[in-house]
Amino acid sequence: MDADAAAHPLPPVAELVEALPEGVVTTRADTLEKYRFDWTHDASAGTPLAAVRAETAEHVQETLRWATRHGVPVVPRGAGSGLSGGSLAVDGGVVLSLERMTSIEVDTATRTVVVEPGALNVDVKRAAAAEGLWYPPDPSSFEICSIGGNIATNAGGLCCVKYGVTTDYVLGLDVVLADGTLVTLGGKRVKDVAGLSLLKLFVGSEGTLGVVTRAVLRLLPAQPARSTTVATFPTVAAAAAAVIELGRTTRASMVELMDQASINAVEDHQPMGLDRDAGALLLIQCDAPGAARAEEAAAATAACEVAGAKEVFTTDDPEEGELFVQARRLHFTAIEGRGTVLPEDVGVPVPQLPALLERVAAIAERHAVEIPVVAHAGDGNTHPAIIFDPADPDAERRAHLAFDEVMAAAIALGGTITGEHGVGRLKAGNLEAQLGPDVMALTRRVKDALDPKGILNPGSVLTR
Amino acid sequence: MDADAAAHPLPPVAELVEALPEGVVTTRADTLEKYRFDWTHDASAGTPLAAVRAETAEHVQETLRWATRHGVPVVPRGAGSGLSGGSLAVDGGVVLSLERMTSIEVDTATRTVVVEPGALNVDVKRAAAAEGLWYPPDPSSFEICSIGGNIATNAGGLCCVKYGVTTDYVLGLDVVLADGTLVTLGGKRVKDVAGLSLLKLFVGSEGTLGVVTRAVLRLLPAQPARSTTVATFPTVAAAAAAVIELGRTTRASMVELMDQASINAVEDHQPMGLDRDAGALLLIQCDAPGAARAEEAAAATAACEVAGAKEVFTTDDPEEGELFVQARRLHFTAIEGRGTVLPEDVGVPVPQLPALLERVAAIAERHAVEIPVVAHAGDGNTHPAIIFDPADPDAERRAHLAFDEVMAAAIALGGTITGEHGVGRLKAGNLEAQLGPDVMALTRRVKDALDPKGILNPGSVLTR
Repeated sequence: MDADAAAHPLPPVAELVEALPEGVVTTRADTLEKYRFDWTHDASAGTPLAAVRAETAEHVQETLRWATRHGVPVVPRGAGSGLSGGSLAVDGGVVLSLERMTSIEVDTATRTVVVEPGALNVDVKRAAAAEGLWYPPDPSSFEICSIGGNIATNAGGLCCVKYGVTTDYVLGLDVVLADGTLVTLGGKRVKDVAGLSLLKLFVGSEGTLGVVTRAVLRLLPAQPARSTTVATFPTVAAAAAAVIELGRTTRASMVELMDQASINAVEDHQPMGLDRDAGALLLIQCDAPGAARAEEAAAATAACEVAGAKEVFTTDDPEEGELFVQARRLHFTAIEGRGTVLPEDVGVPVPQLPALLERVAAIAERHAVEIPVVAHAGDGNTHPAIIFDPADPDAERRAHLAFDEVMAAAIALGGTITGEHGVGRLKAGNLEAQLGPDVMALTRRVKDALDPKGILNPGSVLTR
Repeated sequence: MDADAAAHPLPPVAELVEALPEGVVTTRADTLEKYRFDWTHDASAGTPLAAVRAETAEHVQETLRWATRHGVPVVPRGAGSGLSGGSLAVDGGVVLSLERMTSIEVDTATRTVVVEPGALNVDVKRAAAAEGLWYPPDPSSFEICSIGGNIATNAGGLCCVKYGVTTDYVLGLDVVLADGTLVTLGGKRVKDVAGLSLLKLFVGSEGTLGVVTRAVLRLLPAQPARSTTVATFPTVAAAAAAVIELGRTTRASMVELMDQASINAVEDHQPMGLDRDAGALLLIQCDAPGAARAEEAAAATAACEVAGAKEVFTTDDPEEGELFVQARRLHFTAIEGRGTVLPEDVGVPVPQLPALLERVAAIAERHAVEIPVVAHAGDGNTHPAIIFDPADPDAERRAHLAFDEVMAAAIALGGTITGEHGVGRLKAGNLEAQLGPDVMALTRRVKDALDPKGILNPGSVLTR
């Protein structure tokens, strides 16, 4: 809050409450409590002055004009399912929730959908499917995460190995800037190079440059039927070799990896008949249209066999295939039962997958923590899950050491500290180690140009 | 040139010549002449002080440090094949040519290629193909345009209707900033959301934010065989209806349109047996793998027939298919023979194609100029070619009026003044009409943050 605030006739929050319709702003402590956290439940979450549940872009503009006038930090928030602390509240700030802005309008002629940021990914998929169309991006959390959050983090998922990530589907955005100005970027045209790529700059900016109030997303024709191949390998290295061969010869629509610890965590939680002795398991889906699907699945099988698979099994039955995908999705639930989880999201060039997983195993051993790993292997994006006993402070300390060391290992292998979850607050301190001082300085110049008072999601992405 | 220059012991250019190896800098008038123009041959091109033919990133850094010290404008340049005046020289500036930086290294394990900006698109395609891989982006000029230019304009092409545009393939960039700092963004990892999307901001920035000295590009497995379908329609509206139906039901890898004027221009130039009476022609390619290709081609045929095609013909023979693609590619040569060409590049949402083409025809009639149109119809991106007699000053004046009116028509239909060529100098004056004052102000803030002295390609994209 800057000095001007003191001269103002009303306390800032009362002014905000008056400026917006009944029920949009809340300052009730019990309600605010649920806006403090995202899925990280990180103890560093602050206590906000208020939460704004915007219903229109105008409410967002009003909130940001007020925040700019008074220098109040604003933490934008979708469904709160973030895994990197990007929507943890800050002390003395306001939470700007977009959960009430959920409209979805499919336009079949342009094959686009116009959505508000609070719409859930799953609802966008459903609305598209009702018209025979498809919105591909599919974070594992697609049933509970919002499109606004997907855009803020440039979310990935399982099918992005073939179909790309969120940014590849964003054709247009309405963004409210820090001072309350609403800008419209792009639109229902597929190709547009008029001016700088500001549209792409806002995707993945984690609420630090502006607040998205509307998006135009590209849709594809419905995904063809999929076959599912499950292959087990003696080692992670053999599985990674299969992933490289797959990438050269096929366009599989899913290439997921589970390491031995991860397979066993799922089997412990719910016996699915997975091979507990396998060093790694690959779960591959092929969706080439028509008769080509069987050829593609055969090529996938061949790639696994060449790389030394122990066993390869393919099914063309959608329900049977879905069972295997469920086993992969069970991973998170399975490990949650084993303790508190620090979910990692590091990525490396695909050939470095074995080296990364070796280092992760060494880190787990060194710090005596469990770190099962699942990976969107086709993209080199891994999710080591650092598990610790929350009742043991030393285990928690060691888990946090492991969290930092996993990121350092990824960076050392030419990788990234985050492939799809975002930097948020939990990794902001690790970003410079990856980007270096010059890119950090460039980032700061862009941030300062767009948010000169630093009110937008302070502490997220950039530590200051 | 700023005030500091006066105090400097050497005239600025001599200092630059000394700082770089023999032969890198030239000030010879006859050599400079060829660095003044791009394909627009626009008479507004200035006369540069010097041309730098950089051989390394260090040469680029040295040049930009010098330019920043002395406030000298720098116009980066690839192969000079731009169609919007983005690399026209400016008076008193230097041209920074990247034509000598042409290395290409394919990495099959990561399915990437590391290229220098002067490498031609065709050579990148060839290097990838030698390893069984594919670099999809295919501007019509792919045999003569450079990858640096493709990145600067976020170039599109014919296959982007299925495979996306340049930005979708850029995983990493080395960029030299205005002050000579070299930053490395991204790398050989497929997914990376660490920090702001600065990588994407530089793609399509037309040399106004930095100079790319190295790029990491994603490759795909080789494109499957293609079938080619040619369909003629009584009207452009019927062809556009087929395009919409195609987009809903198939994933064709090429959906090109030629209007009647364009068909006749090609037939006048070289008789190919095209139907001169057709209101429009669609050229469609399908590349679904294996047996699915025939199914996809059948679906494309059905889409054309439903929309009222006069005649539909499909061939699975690659050579025969290539003949039709050649007819489409002949368009530019065919119209060049008819006078001087102002090449347009406007785009609209696909359903607005008929309305746009009607307006273009009305503009042609009003100003008594010829405007044949070809279009990457699947993306709504059209290339009206405004043709005039260069010996007739009034025709030239009318052509320029038509040029502006075509852009205005696209904007009025929810479209863009440029789908893939870029804004350059020729459309900088039209940009605000599309983006509006707030987005222009935002653009200016980003430009000022990255190029505070305004030395990078001044007059391109932004008029000042």
